[in-house]
Amino acid sequence: MNKPHNFSAGPCILPESVLQQASEAVINFDGLNLSLIEVSHRGKNFEAVMERSRQLVKELLGVPEGYQVLFLQGGASLGFLISAYNMMGSRKNPAYINTGTWSAGAIKEVSFTGATANVIASSQDRNFCYIPKNYSIPSDSDYLHITTNNTIEGTQFHHIPETDVPLVADMSSDIFSKQIDVSKFDLIYAGAQKNLGPAGATLYIVKEEAMARRTLAIPTMLDLKKQYEKESMYNTPPVFSIYVSMLTLEWLKNLGGIGEMERINNEKAACLYTEIDRNPLFKGTADLEDRSKMNVTFVLNNADLEPEFDRLWKEAQISGIRGHRSVGGYRASLYNALPLSSVQALVDVMQNFEKQFG
Amino acid sequence: MNKPHNFSAGPCILPESVLQQASEAVINFDGLNLSLIEVSHRGKNFEAVMERSRQLVKELLGVPEGYQVLFLQGGASLGFLISAYNMMGSRKNPAYINTGTWSAGAIKEVSFTGATANVIASSQDRNFCYIPKNYSIPSDSDYLHITTNNTIEGTQFHHIPETDVPLVADMSSDIFSKQIDVSKFDLIYAGAQKNLGPAGATLYIVKEEAMARRTLAIPTMLDLKKQYEKESMYNTPPVFSIYVSMLTLEWLKNLGGIGEMERINNEKAACLYTEIDRNPLFKGTADLEDRSKMNVTFVLNNADLEPEFDRLWKEAQISGIRGHRSVGGYRASLYNALPLSSVQALVDVMQNFEKQFG
Repeated sequence: MNKPHNFSAGPCILPESVLQQASEAVINFDGLNLSLIEVSHRGKNFEAVMERSRQLVKELLGVPEGYQVLFLQGGASLGFLISAYNMMGSRKNPAYINTGTWSAGAIKEVSFTGATANVIASSQDRNFCYIPKNYSIPSDSDYLHITTNNTIEGTQFHHIPETDVPLVADMSSDIFSKQIDVSKFDLIYAGAQKNLGPAGATLYIVKEEAMARRTLAIPTMLDLKKQYEKESMYNTPPVFSIYVSMLTLEWLKNLGGIGEMERINNEKAACLYTEIDRNPLFKGTADLEDRSKMNVTFVLNNADLEPEFDRLWKEAQISGIRGHRSVGGYRASLYNALPLSSVQALVDVMQNFEKQFG
Repeated sequence: MNKPHNFSAGPCILPESVLQQASEAVINFDGLNLSLIEVSHRGKNFEAVMERSRQLVKELLGVPEGYQVLFLQGGASLGFLISAYNMMGSRKNPAYINTGTWSAGAIKEVSFTGATANVIASSQDRNFCYIPKNYSIPSDSDYLHITTNNTIEGTQFHHIPETDVPLVADMSSDIFSKQIDVSKFDLIYAGAQKNLGPAGATLYIVKEEAMARRTLAIPTMLDLKKQYEKESMYNTPPVFSIYVSMLTLEWLKNLGGIGEMERINNEKAACLYTEIDRNPLFKGTADLEDRSKMNVTFVLNNADLEPEFDRLWKEAQISGIRGHRSVGGYRASLYNALPLSSVQALVDVMQNFEKQFG
């Protein structure tokens, strides 16, 4: 039985070699004859995993000096609160760009720190099908928060806002998919379950300088400075998720690093968007210039044909391309571990669908 | 090569059959030919895991009607904050019993909710080697918080305080080890990485009625009511940790449930404490009546002999019995999955040590 073509939006496809190694470590970790999940996180074997994971993040993303890399729990949804707590300065005036569901979540959490988010731009007027442009960022903002890729709406920032205001980004769904300039950001956070590893770990990359501007009393587990002073081990870390993240980063490094990954991801996205634009039965839902290379959202021009299309992709062993339950339609997620051959399989189905129903 | 005798204090030993099943699911989950960690948490296969996990908790612990079972992230250390947020009523006067490191952590987090913990009893005067008795619980307390088992100090509540004040318990290190009366508690929370599963999941059992007394604005991810209304899926849950917890609970059920587990745990603890009390080279560190059946702490009467003792237990393939770095000495953790034969192996080493050095 072949493996299905896994277009799941997250948790999502991980490299086969990573899954094999992870499976083995659950039985025998590092030759200890003990499972990865039954040894102390304070033992030298797991401490080496934590250190190697941090080092790979730094190396692959080119993280400059003066930044700390952390692996915590709670997902990006807890990151909404953690980022606000740790980046809020004395002005209590944080700026947010609202590009969809996850941005809205981040905006909501600000209120629990006692401040109010200043939403300086939004694409809500057209169901978040584009990335706002031509807004101004108040220079007295504590920080500007963006969601670099919007999984549900299929949009992505292809240009990071130029600003002197400290920049905070939720990069859950496109980190490690393309090269970024970390030095532009004071804080980056990302749930692991897309290009990094299994759900349960959350990556933070924080500029140490930014910690000096903090003004709020921050609960211990949400305090990034306390967490990096304890090297992400203030309490027991999510051992398995961090270990598998390390394996995935090793895989990415062996593949040629983020430059090579970006080239492949561009090819995958071009392959699918070209077909969507060519095939008269399909329509992309995001504005062309803001289309996500990670989550390709599209609909049928004739929704009545959905059962026929669904039958075809299921026959082709494709899984996970239904749109998010809040928007419907289709969504093909092209995360790092998805091979071009899976994209080609979907394109074949779309062409076959056109032949039969076009 | 035999498996070491794993006395690790957490993460700790898990049943062999559970590790085998977990390892397989990392490659092929539910016969889907996809890994457990690469499928959607919203798919019917994982939703069944979440539902079964909840059901097993309810069944094994005899959770009454009117309680909700949740699997969240953050460990008990985030639970310190979550419990304070969700249990704080209008009096802002929560009572705490301080029995060691973890209680102290819980007491500290209260301040971030704007209240101050009222420490009504403490065993700090004798390095937390006992459980306080003969204290009075102010009837106007919002709740009383206890840490039922103290992993570092080796003490355990063998009698739950009788009170009309809502009772909150951090049961991270003894839940599922013995029968408890859940109806006595308004909130129980526990990090998974002892008797439940791998680090990364945290169990909450909360009385629905208690949610009506809340007075604080609670950040979304820390709000137990919002979390159970979303069935622990407000955001992506820690899939792997929950799955392995489910497997461990199935193992416990097949073994005969908590009654049988308690019988075995009593036997294990009696075996080791009997030797500590009999052997003139050893001394237990906790008061007899408050000794933990999960974490047995002891020292050598002659600390100079530590290198000799260390050599003997290492030769016997014993691992994880060094005391916590904050207190030193020795600690043998006897969690559910540790077999009596491992305890016997340690007792043999202690007797051999006596023969050689007594």
